Amino acid sequence: MTLSMNPPPDWAALQAEADAPRHLASLVGLPVSAVDTPALVIDLDAMSRNLQRMVEFTRKHDVRLRPHAKMHKSAVLARLQMRAGACGVCVQKASEAEVLAAGGVTDIYISNEVVAPDKLERVVALAQRLAAAGGQLAVAVDSLQGVEALAAAWSGLVGMPQPVIDVLVEIDVGQGRCGVPPGPAAVALAQAVAQVTGLRFAGLQAYHGGAQHLRSPQARRDAIAHSVAAVERTARLIQAAGLTVGLVTGAGTGTFALEAASGVYGELQAGSFMFLDADYARNERDPAQPQFEHALFVKAQVMSVGPAHAVCDAGHKSHAVDSGLPRVLPLGSGPELVYFNGGDEHGILRTAQPGQPLPQLGDVVWLIPGHCDPTVNLHDHMIGITGGLQRGTVECIIAVDARGALT
Amino acid sequence: MTLSMNPPPDWAALQAEADAPRHLASLVGLPVSAVDTPALVIDLDAMSRNLQRMVEFTRKHDVRLRPHAKMHKSAVLARLQMRAGACGVCVQKASEAEVLAAGGVTDIYISNEVVAPDKLERVVALAQRLAAAGGQLAVAVDSLQGVEALAAAWSGLVGMPQPVIDVLVEIDVGQGRCGVPPGPAAVALAQAVAQVTGLRFAGLQAYHGGAQHLRSPQARRDAIAHSVAAVERTARLIQAAGLTVGLVTGAGTGTFALEAASGVYGELQAGSFMFLDADYARNERDPAQPQFEHALFVKAQVMSVGPAHAVCDAGHKSHAVDSGLPRVLPLGSGPELVYFNGGDEHGILRTAQPGQPLPQLGDVVWLIPGHCDPTVNLHDHMIGITGGLQRGTVECIIAVDARGALT
Repeated sequence: MTLSMNPPPDWAALQAEADAPRHLASLVGLPVSAVDTPALVIDLDAMSRNLQRMVEFTRKHDVRLRPHAKMHKSAVLARLQMRAGACGVCVQKASEAEVLAAGGVTDIYISNEVVAPDKLERVVALAQRLAAAGGQLAVAVDSLQGVEALAAAWSGLVGMPQPVIDVLVEIDVGQGRCGVPPGPAAVALAQAVAQVTGLRFAGLQAYHGGAQHLRSPQARRDAIAHSVAAVERTARLIQAAGLTVGLVTGAGTGTFALEAASGVYGELQAGSFMFLDADYARNERDPAQPQFEHALFVKAQVMSVGPAHAVCDAGHKSHAVDSGLPRVLPLGSGPELVYFNGGDEHGILRTAQPGQPLPQLGDVVWLIPGHCDPTVNLHDHMIGITGGLQRGTVECIIAVDARGALT
Repeated sequence: MTLSMNPPPDWAALQAEADAPRHLASLVGLPVSAVDTPALVIDLDAMSRNLQRMVEFTRKHDVRLRPHAKMHKSAVLARLQMRAGACGVCVQKASEAEVLAAGGVTDIYISNEVVAPDKLERVVALAQRLAAAGGQLAVAVDSLQGVEALAAAWSGLVGMPQPVIDVLVEIDVGQGRCGVPPGPAAVALAQAVAQVTGLRFAGLQAYHGGAQHLRSPQARRDAIAHSVAAVERTARLIQAAGLTVGLVTGAGTGTFALEAASGVYGELQAGSFMFLDADYARNERDPAQPQFEHALFVKAQVMSVGPAHAVCDAGHKSHAVDSGLPRVLPLGSGPELVYFNGGDEHGILRTAQPGQPLPQLGDVVWLIPGHCDPTVNLHDHMIGITGGLQRGTVECIIAVDARGALT
């Protein structure tokens, strides 16, 4: 595992094949003030520090890092993560895997169930292409029917090489979403996978999404202790049945220090640490966890001023609101502003303290999105800048390659 | 004004220039069952009936229909609306206007403020191109600074024709967002517009967004009565100052029957009636308002089944949640299902009554999005079908041309 954030990445080389439209490509080298609003902006300096802290953490704890690319949906950022030390990336959707593979990402894990025969045909075909290029594709299952459908798709493959597909059995460790219950059901599924030619039982998928956003460190510790116990019990049963649990994979930005310390998880899937959204920043930090910085912003502009409020040009077509409204980044000595819902295309800004001056028409405001994943998914491109939001320079245009890749 | 929904539109001709990717284009003519999930699907039969009802309503009430294209962001649907009798469309953003104009839409009103000089340069250049093609572009203002910036952009135009740009003065009729207060401030702004070469004071923009979602007809009547009174008072003052208020434009799907009956509004901007989302369906209907049908759906598939819930493959990257979670369309004799938040890529389904059977792995479910505008903005294409969701056929692929057009 090598760190390559220092010296900083060669963005031009990383994004060589990115196909930014001319009006965006022409921004490179210009000051941040030239970026039209609303726009999604990455503070590359902060993002690089976040990545470096995470790589150092995983190295110190001897776990693999496989960041979730559903967050950034960018082949450039996935490759940057792998260059910095990640073993590969996760995705949630077959089409995300296809798009990232087309962008040069070679090690992809679909940490989710795929059951439609048409999709599974695409998944095994992609596994074949990646294997031929020296890479690999893994996938999760949580039903016998899913294993059978995957096996059927695999047996329909023609040509060489016939890839061996790593299959992770997903157990529900507290999220209440996908996954079989920990225990005997997972053993049966692991055995079913192991019996299929072309599939390899690789271990357990065990992600507790609900635990990520529990605000107190103690609540997160309790939740992940429960997850770890469920994983240990299940792994013992599977091993008693004669199979090896090669890997336990899971964890997110809210809890990964706990999974890393468990001695059970071998791989961390956290993704949001790269950008750190407003919702994750509301978690009370566990001292064991590295400190991350906000690195993703919506640049917006005041386009109307009322008697006691201003209106900016970014609404919830510019940022997702599923985890709350964006925070307004305090800048310099200006008054603290609070963002209120103004609909699809507008944000209402009021001063936090009465009597403070409102921003003026044309002023720039920087928003910290409530939730980075679905915010990124609203944009075709992210504007990468260095040197700070106020006086920085546009360094690169990063395509959100898998934006809208839903299937 | 002519109705041309009967015979039904020639979709192939309407979308001739649409650039659907091959895997979608090949769906045309296939049964709905061939559509991969999740996907945004339009029931074209229901949408056509909605449009016909709206055109009949506006004809009967002698008001113009200028539907808001921020809802569908599609040049094909904008042209369909104009062919059916709409005078043009509204948009919220300069880039939306550019994209729709490139798709053959000739009469566009930016019902929102544009203040950035770079954007205004694009706006006046587009006005010039549309005027040269026999069309027109109008824009709203709510500040002297905005009028001056628009005038400066206009005076920078080179070449012929020099378009005359219709400018609507926005007044805040209850929304508390953009717009000057009704009364003298609007008069001053109208006078400022009238004094600028190249700009024509065309009337008032008066939209009460908050009133659209008031559930009781009486609450909506009260809100719009307030709006109408504010418009009348302002129009009298402007006319007393020697200017003509040629047009009052506004209204949305929740209230348009009220604005139409006011005798004051000359143009209705409702957009959502075409698709009717779950949130608008929660309004108690005013008998004066036509009855619309749901016409926009997310086709989703069950990809995991737990002990007391099923999981479908559509989360809030497939549908917007700002106006609530989607409803599950009841189909045939199956149990009533309720959708719970499952995150970005998943939806949790439970039966409304305990003890009823859950859907099975691979089953299709149809979701009615909470809010159509930002839902459409998540998708690159809409799959147009006829003949019903269960046994229908894919008729056309409609590009969401202005998806992500934020600036």
